[in-house]
Amino acid sequence: MMKVLVLNGPNLNRLGKREPTIYGNETLEQIMNDLDQQAKLLEVEIAHKQSNHEGELIDWIHQADDRYDGIILNAGAFTHYSYAIRDAIASISSPTIEVHLSNIYARESFRHTSVLSEVVIGQISGFGPIGYELAVRGLIHFLRGKNR
Amino acid sequence: MMKVLVLNGPNLNRLGKREPTIYGNETLEQIMNDLDQQAKLLEVEIAHKQSNHEGELIDWIHQADDRYDGIILNAGAFTHYSYAIRDAIASISSPTIEVHLSNIYARESFRHTSVLSEVVIGQISGFGPIGYELAVRGLIHFLRGKNR
Amino acid sequence: MMKVLVLNGPNLNRLGKREPTIYGNETLEQIMNDLDQQAKLLEVEIAHKQSNHEGELIDWIHQADDRYDGIILNAGAFTHYSYAIRDAIASISSPTIEVHLSNIYARESFRHTSVLSEVVIGQISGFGPIGYELAVRGLIHFLRGKNR
Amino acid sequence: MMKVLVLNGPNLNRLGKREPTIYGNETLEQIMNDLDQQAKLLEVEIAHKQSNHEGELIDWIHQADDRYDGIILNAGAFTHYSYAIRDAIASISSPTIEVHLSNIYARESFRHTSVLSEVVIGQISGFGPIGYELAVRGLIHFLRGKNR
Amino acid sequence: MMKVLVLNGPNLNRLGKREPTIYGNETLEQIMNDLDQQAKLLEVEIAHKQSNHEGELIDWIHQADDRYDGIILNAGAFTHYSYAIRDAIASISSPTIEVHLSNIYARESFRHTSVLSEVVIGQISGFGPIGYELAVRGLIHFLRGKNR
Amino acid sequence: MMKVLVLNGPNLNRLGKREPTIYGNETLEQIMNDLDQQAKLLEVEIAHKQSNHEGELIDWIHQADDRYDGIILNAGAFTHYSYAIRDAIASISSPTIEVHLSNIYARESFRHTSVLSEVVIGQISGFGPIGYELAVRGLIHFLRGKNR
Amino acid sequence: MMKVLVLNGPNLNRLGKREPTIYGNETLEQIMNDLDQQAKLLEVEIAHKQSNHEGELIDWIHQADDRYDGIILNAGAFTHYSYAIRDAIASISSPTIEVHLSNIYARESFRHTSVLSEVVIGQISGFGPIGYELAVRGLIHFLRGKNR
Amino acid sequence: MMKVLVLNGPNLNRLGKREPTIYGNETLEQIMNDLDQQAKLLEVEIAHKQSNHEGELIDWIHQADDRYDGIILNAGAFTHYSYAIRDAIASISSPTIEVHLSNIYARESFRHTSVLSEVVIGQISGFGPIGYELAVRGLIHFLRGKNR
Amino acid sequence: MMKVLVLNGPNLNRLGKREPTIYGNETLEQIMNDLDQQAKLLEVEIAHKQSNHEGELIDWIHQADDRYDGIILNAGAFTHYSYAIRDAIASISSPTIEVHLSNIYARESFRHTSVLSEVVIGQISGFGPIGYELAVRGLIHFLRGKNR
Amino acid sequence: MMKVLVLNGPNLNRLGKREPTIYGNETLEQIMNDLDQQAKLLEVEIAHKQSNHEGELIDWIHQADDRYDGIILNAGAFTHYSYAIRDAIASISSPTIEVHLSNIYARESFRHTSVLSEVVIGQISGFGPIGYELAVRGLIHFLRGKNR
Amino acid sequence: MMKVLVLNGPNLNRLGKREPTIYGNETLEQIMNDLDQQAKLLEVEIAHKQSNHEGELIDWIHQADDRYDGIILNAGAFTHYSYAIRDAIASISSPTIEVHLSNIYARESFRHTSVLSEVVIGQISGFGPIGYELAVRGLIHFLRGKNR
Amino acid sequence: MMKVLVLNGPNLNRLGKREPTIYGNETLEQIMNDLDQQAKLLEVEIAHKQSNHEGELIDWIHQADDRYDGIILNAGAFTHYSYAIRDAIASISSPTIEVHLSNIYARESFRHTSVLSEVVIGQISGFGPIGYELAVRGLIHFLRGKNR
Repeated sequence: MMKVLVLNGPNLNRLGKREPTIYGNETLEQIMNDLDQQAKLLEVEIAHKQSNHEGELIDWIHQADDRYDGIILNAGAFTHYSYAIRDAIASISSPTIEVHLSNIYARESFRHTSVLSEVVIGQISGFGPIGYELAVRGLIHFLRGKNR
Repeated sequence: MMKVLVLNGPNLNRLGKREPTIYGNETLEQIMNDLDQQAKLLEVEIAHKQSNHEGELIDWIHQADDRYDGIILNAGAFTHYSYAIRDAIASISSPTIEVHLSNIYARESFRHTSVLSEVVIGQISGFGPIGYELAVRGLIHFLRGKNR
Repeated sequence: MMKVLVLNGPNLNRLGKREPTIYGNETLEQIMNDLDQQAKLLEVEIAHKQSNHEGELIDWIHQADDRYDGIILNAGAFTHYSYAIRDAIASISSPTIEVHLSNIYARESFRHTSVLSEVVIGQISGFGPIGYELAVRGLIHFLRGKNR
Repeated sequence: MMKVLVLNGPNLNRLGKREPTIYGNETLEQIMNDLDQQAKLLEVEIAHKQSNHEGELIDWIHQADDRYDGIILNAGAFTHYSYAIRDAIASISSPTIEVHLSNIYARESFRHTSVLSEVVIGQISGFGPIGYELAVRGLIHFLRGKNR
Repeated sequence: MMKVLVLNGPNLNRLGKREPTIYGNETLEQIMNDLDQQAKLLEVEIAHKQSNHEGELIDWIHQADDRYDGIILNAGAFTHYSYAIRDAIASISSPTIEVHLSNIYARESFRHTSVLSEVVIGQISGFGPIGYELAVRGLIHFLRGKNR
Repeated sequence: MMKVLVLNGPNLNRLGKREPTIYGNETLEQIMNDLDQQAKLLEVEIAHKQSNHEGELIDWIHQADDRYDGIILNAGAFTHYSYAIRDAIASISSPTIEVHLSNIYARESFRHTSVLSEVVIGQISGFGPIGYELAVRGLIHFLRGKNR
Repeated sequence: MMKVLVLNGPNLNRLGKREPTIYGNETLEQIMNDLDQQAKLLEVEIAHKQSNHEGELIDWIHQADDRYDGIILNAGAFTHYSYAIRDAIASISSPTIEVHLSNIYARESFRHTSVLSEVVIGQISGFGPIGYELAVRGLIHFLRGKNR
Repeated sequence: MMKVLVLNGPNLNRLGKREPTIYGNETLEQIMNDLDQQAKLLEVEIAHKQSNHEGELIDWIHQADDRYDGIILNAGAFTHYSYAIRDAIASISSPTIEVHLSNIYARESFRHTSVLSEVVIGQISGFGPIGYELAVRGLIHFLRGKNR
Repeated sequence: MMKVLVLNGPNLNRLGKREPTIYGNETLEQIMNDLDQQAKLLEVEIAHKQSNHEGELIDWIHQADDRYDGIILNAGAFTHYSYAIRDAIASISSPTIEVHLSNIYARESFRHTSVLSEVVIGQISGFGPIGYELAVRGLIHFLRGKNR
Repeated sequence: MMKVLVLNGPNLNRLGKREPTIYGNETLEQIMNDLDQQAKLLEVEIAHKQSNHEGELIDWIHQADDRYDGIILNAGAFTHYSYAIRDAIASISSPTIEVHLSNIYARESFRHTSVLSEVVIGQISGFGPIGYELAVRGLIHFLRGKNR
Repeated sequence: MMKVLVLNGPNLNRLGKREPTIYGNETLEQIMNDLDQQAKLLEVEIAHKQSNHEGELIDWIHQADDRYDGIILNAGAFTHYSYAIRDAIASISSPTIEVHLSNIYARESFRHTSVLSEVVIGQISGFGPIGYELAVRGLIHFLRGKNR
Repeated sequence: MMKVLVLNGPNLNRLGKREPTIYGNETLEQIMNDLDQQAKLLEVEIAHKQSNHEGELIDWIHQADDRYDGIILNAGAFTHYSYAIRDAIASISSPTIEVHLSNIYARESFRHTSVLSEVVIGQISGFGPIGYELAVRGLIHFLRGKNR
C-alpha cells in the first residue's frame, strides 16, 4: 500500500478560525479526516503533521525519505522565502507536491513567488481542501509512471 | 450532465512530436480521448478544441459562457502575455481552470509568470496529461460547492 | 464629408455583458449607434468594426490608410503589449486617436502602460462611451489644423 | 448653470513663449478666452487660475469643493511628482479631469507617469488647447450621468 | 535541391510605403523577387509568405517541418513578445534564422529584446533586404555542416 | 517649560471633511485642542501651524531651531518626496519626530517610503490623533535623556 | 483589567550586551520591569516572552488570541522577512502593535522594509525602551475606541 | 556689462549654521559678497536671491529671461525632484548653469540624480563657494562663444 | 589552547546522501572527524553542532560568545535570508568565518547573495570539506594578529 | 579594390583550444585564411589583427579610419562593457559590422547585451566562422549602396 | 610653482575629427596649448598625456602621486565602468578633478553614471575646452584651502 | 613539484601605500616573499606577476595554461567588470582560485559582485595576505583530489 506524508506549515492549525473568506470554515482536523477517507478508497495510507517551525518541517522531510512514497506539502508562508525547505526537498528522493488552498496568484504580490516550485513535481492551488485529494491522485499517477 | 470545454492553445497540436523530454510522447488526440473516457465515468461531457490563434481562443471563451459549465484552459505560451485572453476569462461567468503539462516554475524564467492566474479558479501544473483529469475533478467540486 | 474608422479590439463585443461596474450597461451596438448619430451632426461619416484578432485589426488599419481621414482605436488589452498594432499605426499616414472607456490608470498596474501611446495623436480615457465622441471632436480639430 | 474651475500649473504662463514646437503659439490668455466662449455655448461658466506654486494649487482645489461643480486640471510638471496635489483632489467631492496639451507619452520617460491619474475621472492628452474644451464636454456628461 | 521557407510577419506587407527612412523604398514583392533570383544561383528553392496574424505564422512554421530544410524568419514586432512563435520554432526540427532589416539595437529600447533569439541558429540585423540573402548563405553552411 | 512646535503639512486642514474612513471625523482644530490640553498636563507648551506650501514648512522648521525644544511633524504627502524638507530637518539641531495618522504601510505603495525617516528621531504611525500625544511623550523622554 | 502580551524576537535577549551604541545599555529584563511598573499605573497587566525561534513566536501569537487584549511585538530581524509571523498576526483578532528600539529607517537598507506593517494597527520606532510604553498607551486608546 | 542672476534654493539660507563639515562655515551672505567682488573684476554684474519656495524660484527664472544674460542655479534638494523647475529652465532662452557646493556624487544615493542636468549648459560640483565663481567664468565663455 | 565552534545549518546532516555531484560523498560525521584531527595538529580544539532550526543556531551563537575564541559557520540556505542569524553574529564579540562547500556563485542566482557576509571576518567557498580546515587556519591567523 | 580590416578581441587567439563545444575546432589562423580566400573571390582585400588589450583595439580602430573601407569586429567579451570601443567606432567614418561566432542570445544573460550595437551598421551572430564571410558580403552591399 | 597633470582618456586623441557637433572643432593639441598658456598666467605648470589604454592611465596616476600637486582627469568612456581607475585615484593622496567636455547628463543614459565621482574632489561638465581651465582654478583654490 | 602562478591585478602594486586601514601595511613584495617561503614548505613553486593592464593579465592567463598547475588570482577592481578575464579563465584547463584581501561584501555595493566567480574553483576573501596561503593549500587539495 502506497504511503504518503501530508505536511502542513505555519498557521494552517488556525484553519476554520482564520480569515474564513479566504480559507473556508473547515478545521485542519476535518480536512485531514476527509482526505484520509478519500485516500483509503484510493488505497493510499496517509500520515499528516503540522508545524509552525521551519526546522521541524525540514526534519520531517528528511525522515520521510525512507518511510514514505511521496510528500504533499502546504508550506504556508514558508513557500515564499524558505530556501532551507527547498534544499530539504531537493535532498530526498521521494517526490513532493506543492498544494495551496487559495489561489496565491490572486492575492498579495509577495505570494506570487514560490521558492519551492523548482524542486517539486507539480503545483496545485486554488481548489480549497479538495486540493489535497487532487495531489494524492496526481502523486499516484506520477509514482505509477515512474515504476512502470 | 455537466458540460466542460477543454481549450488548448498554441503549439499543443505538436504534442508527441515536440520536445518529448518535456512534454511526453502522447499526442493531443490521445490525451483528449483518455480524458473523454475518464470524464464520462465522472458524468461530465467534454468538448475540446485547439488553436494557435489568440483571437480564436477568445471567441471560443466568449461562446462558452452560455453553453458550458466551466472551462479548462491550457493556454500554452499565451499564458505569459495574453492580457486579451485574461480579459475574455474575466468577461464570462463560467469558471476557468488553468492547466500546464510541465512544471512551468522549473523552466525558463519567462514561464514563471501567468497573466491569467489572477482571474481563474485554480491552477494545476507539472502532472502531464493527468493534469486535465485533476482539473475536471477540481471543477466538479467547485461547481457543486457553488450550487449548494 | 470627413470619414472616420472606429476600431474596437478584444472583448469589447462583450460590453453590456462584461463586468458592468467597470464598463457600464450599454452594448457596443448601442454605443456605436449613439456615436453614429452624434457624428452626423458633426458632418462626419463613421464606420466601425470589432475583432478579437490582433491580425485582423492590423489588416484593417492598413486598409484604412487610403479610405479614412482618421482612426479612433480602442485596442482593449492589446493596448498593453501589441507592438505589432503599434507598428501598423506608425506605418500609415492617417492619424489615430486612442480611447479607453475606463480610467486605465486607476486599475491593475499592467493597464497603466500603453505601447501605442507614442505613435497616436492623443489619448482619452475614463469617460465611458462619450469618449468616442470626444475623440471624433478632437480628430476634427486636428485635421482642420493640419489642412489649414 | 454649471460652474467649472480650470487650474493651470507651473510654466503654463509661459505658453506662446515656451518651446512653440511642442506647445503651440497661443498664449494661456488666448486659450482661456476661446474656452470661455465655447463653454458659454455649452451653458457652462468657467473660472480659471494659474500658479507656479504647488501650495497655491492645493489651496484652490480645497476652496473649489463648495464653489464649483468640477475641476479641469493641467498640473504641468507637478503631474509627475506632486502626491500632495493628488491628496488634495482625493479630499474633495467635486470631480477632477486631467488635461495635457501635448501627448505626454511621446515625450521624455519621466512624463509617462502621472501620480494624479488614479484619483481623477478621466484623462485627455495630446489635443493641444482643444483638450480643455473636450474636458468640459466630458465633465458635463459625467455630471449629468451622476445626477440622473 | 535545398528548400527554404521565408516568413515575414506583421506590417512587412507595408514595406516601401512605411517609414522609408528606416525600411527603404523597395516593396516586399521586389525584395522577395531579388532573393528568389539570388537563391537560384545558390541552388536553393525559396517559398515565401507574409501574415499579420501570429496564429497563421505558427501554423506555417508547424507545416514547414516536413516540407522545408530551413526557415528564414523576419517576425516583425512579434519578435519582441510572441513566446508562442518561439515555442513553434522550438517544436520543429528544421533550423530557423532570424532576420531584421534595420539594426534593432539602434532603435527604441523595446526592440532590443528578441524572445526568439534563444531558439534560432543565428541572427542577422541591420543589412536591409540583403539580410535575407546572407541568411540563405548562412543556412546553407549550417545544413552542410550538419550533414557532413 | 518645554516648548514643542507641531507642524501639519498639505491637506491636513481637510481633516474631518476628507476621506473619514481613513482619517476619522475630528477636525485638525479639535485634534490640536485635545493635544494642547494633554500637553499642559505633561508641562509642555504646544504651538501648531498648518500649511499646504512646502516652502512655508521649510521656513517654519528653520525658525523653530532657536525657539522650540523639538518639532512634531506630520508632513502629509510631502513625506514621500520632499528632500527639501528633509534637508531643513537636517539643518537644525532641535530633534524632529514624524507622525502619521493612518498606517501608511497598509496603504498605496508610494506611501511606504518616507524620505524624512533617516533624519528624524523616531516615527509613529497608525494611531490616529493620539499619535501626536505619543510623540510628545516620546520627545520628552528623548530630551530628558539628552540633558542627563 | 486590560491584559497585554509583549513579545520580543531574535537577539533581543542580547540587549545591554549587544552593540550598545545602537541599542543602549539596559538589559531586556530591566526594560520589561520598567514597562511592568508603568503599565500598572495605566491599569494594564503585562506578560512578556522572548524567543529566537520563529515558530515559537507564531505559537505564542496563536495562543494570545483568547488570552490577551492585544500584542506588542518587537520581532527583531524577523520583521524583514517572516511572512509566517505576518500570517499569524492576520489569523488572530487581537490587535498587534509593532515596536522597534532603533530608527530602522536610518540603518541598513534591508531594515527599511517590514513585512509585518500591513497587518498591524500601528508602528513605533526610534524611541528606545520607552517605545514599549508608548505602544501600551496607543493600544489602550485603540481598544477604548473600538469598545465605545 | 553682462548681467547674471544667481539663484539659491531651499536651505541654502542655513549655510554657515547647517552641517559645517559638509557645507563649510561661511554664510550665504559672505559667499555672495565674495562672488560680487570677483564678478566685478570680470566685468559681470551679479544679482542674487534665495528662496525655500519652489514656486518663487520658478517665478524668478521666468522673470530672468528678459533681464539677465544667464542664470547660475544652486537648486538645493529641488535638484533631485523638481521637474517644474526643469520646465522653467527649458522655457527661457537665457542659459543656466547648475552649481553644487558639495560633491553630490559622494553623498546619499538620492543626491546622485539631477532632474535639471539635461536642460542646463553645464554642471559644477564639489568646489565649495568657489564653484559660483567658476560658473560665472564658464558662463562668460559660453556667452562669448555664442555671440561670436 | 584555542577553542573553535563549528556550526552547520539546515540540510547539512544530509551530506553524503544529498546531491553527491554537488556536495560529495562524505558524511558530515566524517568531515568533522577529519577536521578534528587536522585541528589538533594546529593546537585547536573543535566542537561542532548541526541544526535545521534557525532559532537553535542563534541560541548557539549567543552561547559561544563566552566559551569559544571563534565560530566557523556553514549556514546552508539560511545564508541567503536569515537576517536573524546575521544579527546574532553581530551581537557577539567572537569572530565568525563563513564557509560554503560548493562555489555558491556558480549555482542558482538566489545563492549568490549572502546576508551574513557583511558581519563576518571572511568567506571561503568552493573547496569542499577542506574549506573548514582553511577556515580554521584563517581564524588562527586572525586571532594571532588581534592579540599581537 | 575594397579594403577591410578584421579585428578580433580578447581570447579569440584561444580558438580551437578553448571550449570547442561552443566555439568549434578551427584556430583563428585557419578561419582567417579561409576568409582571406573567400574575400579574394569577392575582390576584397582583408587585413586582420587580434589583441587581448582594449586600448590596442581602440588604437587600431582609429588608424583604420583612413586606411580601410570598413571594419569587421568580433570584440569578444569587450562587446558587453567597453564603452571606450563604442566611442572609438563612433569617432571614425568607416562603417563597422559586429560579428559573434556563437549565438550570444542563447548563452549567459550578460552576453545578451552589446554596448556596441547602437553604433555599428549591422550584427551577425551564431553562424560560426562563416559569419565573417557573411559580414564581408554585407559590407560590400552597404558600401555599394552608399557610393551609388 | 604648482604642478598639475592633465590626463585624457580613450578617444580624446580624436578631438577635432570626432563628432564635432558634440565635441567641437579644436584638436586636443590646441586645447592643451591654450590650457598651458592660461595655466602659466595662474602660475601653474601643466603636463599632459593621453592614452586609450586603461592600464597606462592607472600607471600614470600612480606615478603622479609624488610628482604632481593634483590631477585633472577626463577619463572619456572609462568614466562609466573603470573601477580600476577609481581605485587608482583612491590609492594616491594628490587630489583629482573630473572634467567632461560635453554635458554627459544630456546624452545617452549610460553616460549619466560616473564610477569615479565618489573619489574625486569635484566634477565639471558641459563647458567644452574651457572646462580644463575651470578645473585648474578649482584645484588652486582647493590646494590653497588645504595648505592654509 | 607543483607550480602555481599568482597574478595580482590593478593597484595591488600600491599595497602598503594605499588605504592602509583597508589593505594593511605590508607591500606586495613582502607578501609575495612570505608566500614564497610558506609555499616551499608545502612543496609548491610560486611565480608571481602584477599588472594594471587587463590585456596583460589575459595574456599571462593564456600562457599559464601549459606552464602552471593552477592560478591564484587577485584581479582587484577587474573582478567586478572584466568579462574578458572571465573568458580567459574559462579558456584554459588549469584551475583558478579567486582571492581578495579585504571582505569585499562588507564594502561598497559594486564590490559585492564578481564576474569571475562562476568560472573559478573557489573564492577566499577577507583574510588579508594569509588568503594567498589558504588559496595555495586549497589548490593543493583540489589538484590531489583530481589526480587521485
